[in-house]
Amino acid sequence: LKQSTGRTAGRLTIIGTGPGDPELLTLKALKAVEQAQAIVAPTGRPNGASSALEIIAQAADISGKQVVEVHFSMQKVRLSGSRHRSVEESWSKAADTVLEFTGQGMNVVFPTIGDPAFYSTAYYLLSTVQERQPGLVTEVIPGISSVGSCSSALKAPLALGDDMLCIIPATFGDDRIRQAIETFDSIALMKVHRCLPRVIRILEEYSLLENAVLVEKCALDGERIFQDIRKAAHEDLHYFSTVIVRKQRMGTAGRFIVPGTGDRNGRNVDER
Amino acid sequence: LKQSTGRTAGRLTIIGTGPGDPELLTLKALKAVEQAQAIVAPTGRPNGASSALEIIAQAADISGKQVVEVHFSMQKVRLSGSRHRSVEESWSKAADTVLEFTGQGMNVVFPTIGDPAFYSTAYYLLSTVQERQPGLVTEVIPGISSVGSCSSALKAPLALGDDMLCIIPATFGDDRIRQAIETFDSIALMKVHRCLPRVIRILEEYSLLENAVLVEKCALDGERIFQDIRKAAHEDLHYFSTVIVRKQRMGTAGRFIVPGTGDRNGRNVDER
Repeated sequence: LKQSTGRTAGRLTIIGTGPGDPELLTLKALKAVEQAQAIVAPTGRPNGASSALEIIAQAADISGKQVVEVHFSMQKVRLSGSRHRSVEESWSKAADTVLEFTGQGMNVVFPTIGDPAFYSTAYYLLSTVQERQPGLVTEVIPGISSVGSCSSALKAPLALGDDMLCIIPATFGDDRIRQAIETFDSIALMKVHRCLPRVIRILEEYSLLENAVLVEKCALDGERIFQDIRKAAHEDLHYFSTVIVRKQRMGTAGRFIVPGTGDRNGRNVDER
Repeated sequence: LKQSTGRTAGRLTIIGTGPGDPELLTLKALKAVEQAQAIVAPTGRPNGASSALEIIAQAADISGKQVVEVHFSMQKVRLSGSRHRSVEESWSKAADTVLEFTGQGMNVVFPTIGDPAFYSTAYYLLSTVQERQPGLVTEVIPGISSVGSCSSALKAPLALGDDMLCIIPATFGDDRIRQAIETFDSIALMKVHRCLPRVIRILEEYSLLENAVLVEKCALDGERIFQDIRKAAHEDLHYFSTVIVRKQRMGTAGRFIVPGTGDRNGRNVDER
């Protein structure tokens, strides 16, 4: 914990926890948790539990560590526009907490669901911490992405051969979604829980409904796979819902999923 | 190893090994290796060593397990077109080997670099195996993707807020790359090792050179980060080279990387 200057200082390590199954943590992330004295974890609701914290608590003994949960506003953030005040306050509060711990020589872990590379609030925190204390030692450990995990659950690739792949939030306007569908071979639409009927309508226009599949709560208890995404239209879907569309299909069978494989436990999908 | 029918049968588990650092294996992948009696691993060259095998051998004791390396032709595969004969033969041979082991009741692991979701040959193998033996129990365990790992090394997100992200092989034609650049906020160009001058020329057209960064051999010995990708143009780049372009930049500093962070070890990039 001593730097070469002799000054005691902790470090901030951002870790991707993967989509939910604690076994999908990396060895490196687990080690970072074990070597940390403090954990600062994000929650989506003011008094809700942190999913990211729950994942690491299932894989490591976190008793004896300082644990602080910080509420991050789910306000939509447009980087090119102005930030909502409650968003700024979330980052500011989380940064305060992190720097208080590192100032005491503690190593801090900030866990974030999935892979920090994809739409993680962790980078807002990192940016804020770096602005306040540029010399702080920081590290980012990648995690299993939600789209990668969906692909594994389906036992089907997101992209293969000469596919062009895009990953976009389904909350985008119709025109941008149409543009993605027209340009790309493989499209992952994240966060479809509130706009599935619209996505279904657009996919119907392109006769791509049969090339689409929906994975809800991938790698979490209650995971569901809808090979006919219309069947999910009237369900109360979880926030972690992803639609994957592939124009090209591998093998000879005209189905998205490799024939005969079913879901991750060998069961056929749509049959649970 | 007994199925409910009483028949002895092994299973095939495809695991993503992550980009190279054995610590980036997941707990689940490590467990699969430990519980396997046989490993069938892909090599890119006829007599070359398997990178995927090397990664798992650093994390687990594989002595005492059957290990077979199978050469997978690197011939470009177009799913919509006909397959090259040597490609078909690779899959066929690998499938034979897998089914021979599972037929003897062995659990087989097939390791693949990165995340199987992204352009992995493992799906050609899975498809072939499933065609021959539809009832075989199979599982796919996701891995840390090379693009996710690059993002972590840079301590910068691939996508944030309302970014639209695409992942494409840089070997595509100029028109498709231009189309991706025009449509998307964030573009990951994989396998740029042989076409970097062309990529630089296209990015120059859009004045996006300063928004681009190149990561070579991410999470492997000899990892290099080129924040000025022009400096990499005359290098003999490794196959694992990725250019990431982001139009929007986070924070106030006009740089791709979060200011003051440097590379994964806290050093500034371009300074090694």
